[in-house]
Amino acid sequence: MSFEGRETGLPRPPRPTTMIASPRLSHDLGLDVILAAETFQYTGSFKYRAARHVVASVQQAHIITASSGNFGQALAYACALFGKRCTVVMPAAGVQTKMDGIRYYGGTVDIVDTASVPREERVAQLAAQHPDAYIASAYDDPLVIAGNSGLGHELAALNLGCDAIIVPVGGGGLSAGIITGLREYGDGTPVIGAEPEMANDAARSLRAGELASLAGEPPTIADGARVRRLGRHTWPILRAGLADIMEAGEEQIAQAVRVLFNHANLKSEPTGALGIAALLAQPRRFAGRRVCCVVTGGNADCDLFARIIASG
Amino acid sequence: MSFEGRETGLPRPPRPTTMIASPRLSHDLGLDVILAAETFQYTGSFKYRAARHVVASVQQAHIITASSGNFGQALAYACALFGKRCTVVMPAAGVQTKMDGIRYYGGTVDIVDTASVPREERVAQLAAQHPDAYIASAYDDPLVIAGNSGLGHELAALNLGCDAIIVPVGGGGLSAGIITGLREYGDGTPVIGAEPEMANDAARSLRAGELASLAGEPPTIADGARVRRLGRHTWPILRAGLADIMEAGEEQIAQAVRVLFNHANLKSEPTGALGIAALLAQPRRFAGRRVCCVVTGGNADCDLFARIIASG
Repeated sequence: MSFEGRETGLPRPPRPTTMIASPRLSHDLGLDVILAAETFQYTGSFKYRAARHVVASVQQAHIITASSGNFGQALAYACALFGKRCTVVMPAAGVQTKMDGIRYYGGTVDIVDTASVPREERVAQLAAQHPDAYIASAYDDPLVIAGNSGLGHELAALNLGCDAIIVPVGGGGLSAGIITGLREYGDGTPVIGAEPEMANDAARSLRAGELASLAGEPPTIADGARVRRLGRHTWPILRAGLADIMEAGEEQIAQAVRVLFNHANLKSEPTGALGIAALLAQPRRFAGRRVCCVVTGGNADCDLFARIIASG
Repeated sequence: MSFEGRETGLPRPPRPTTMIASPRLSHDLGLDVILAAETFQYTGSFKYRAARHVVASVQQAHIITASSGNFGQALAYACALFGKRCTVVMPAAGVQTKMDGIRYYGGTVDIVDTASVPREERVAQLAAQHPDAYIASAYDDPLVIAGNSGLGHELAALNLGCDAIIVPVGGGGLSAGIITGLREYGDGTPVIGAEPEMANDAARSLRAGELASLAGEPPTIADGARVRRLGRHTWPILRAGLADIMEAGEEQIAQAVRVLFNHANLKSEPTGALGIAALLAQPRRFAGRRVCCVVTGGNADCDLFARIIASG
């Protein structure tokens, strides 16, 4: 069933984030945790905020991007709304449900074997073939950061009184956007990144004070964090604005997915659960305090999800 | 880890329901569907609305009830807040995660083999043993209907402009509450019940114009609808106020759980998915129109849930 053209012309501003509090989750974690779930955002992740802003802002009718899938889905949906088209470069090892989502909304999926051709190289090839297209980064574009800053505005307006806001970090587009949005609204709440141990380029960059890169795309189950380095636009914002980065192991990420599923009834994809995973990794750090965890998306494959929740 | 006593004295009014719209879900169903999710309500289902109202309203410090689990969990949590205690009669075939939840919040679980002793009989035995206790029905109590009417007030205030609101029916406590609440706020939106085919006592009652009973508790996967008949208090409200009841087969209920999971990122227990299941059972009935489905709860066992989503 094709979606293309069905909603062309509808404005569809981003849905406000969904705030969820579970006394049981808080009690089990030993702190007061509030979830800001972007799993019910259009196309199931925060990426719609940025994608819509890009599609609405640029003149081009064709947009090319590389995405592990959520930005691609969001871009395809935004293009459907604005009567534009997009091509999304995805790794062959990408999540099936995200590929299906891009095609569902009318986007073109371009699969690349990232072991032999980096995504950026494939995007450069496509850019050369389509000189009229806009090349969008899923994270490293001022328009992306501006689109994501809306979540920072929402969190500031909610006046949560948190000791920290923990945000999953891949390319840094969301964390940079949240920092920007909070500060624009005069909210100084510390923002902490959460990253898989095996994809800790942001943590290493922050410690070293200079941009670090991973040699290849790490096979973490948090597929949204399989990014080799932060962006040129996100890095300065994160270097100046992130209070810290917390790292989580793969088993802690799976455990966080289970905890959210069982004790908050929330379906999170592994990347979305990184904040809770970071709290599981450092259980004493925020004991008795109040923390907001941004759950970035919920688009997990059924099979993977069933395996994760059954293995608890 | 025990929860008992931890939140005693906190007021905890019910959380407003969570409104979710997914263009993909709407498109796939061929109508404009809005979800009113009670899965993020305290203790994970709408039952907290009623349980809190009962616990806050009665003088007794000990409350006895029969529950397939969600009312029991909600009651146990409400008792923890108000410094009271409860005993919950559950069928041996009950959902493990719900039994665990009752115990977690400090409630006592009393397991009964419903094949030999009906739940009501066991409740009567306990009532005789504890003359000072309040005997609460999970659905057939004016306090329960009044507590649930709050969701009707919320839906009326949201002014959704729906052609119908579809509500899962077990004992009828929620549907009676929603009808009551909507009408109190001057909202005449038709309310339709949704029921498993194999537990269709409400549909049969409505057709016959008199209260019908099932011979035994039907083994539907929608465990919240394993009720043999509507209540004395709920039946008159439903007879006068329900526009219709739609029935769904077991496979449609499982399919509805999958559809909500995959296309709305929502974790629903099978009973909560009855509204979507009813729409799958009658796909043309609301074609092109706008419908609100109340998703009553999200407390499914991991193993069952993993089986349901993996079998799609």
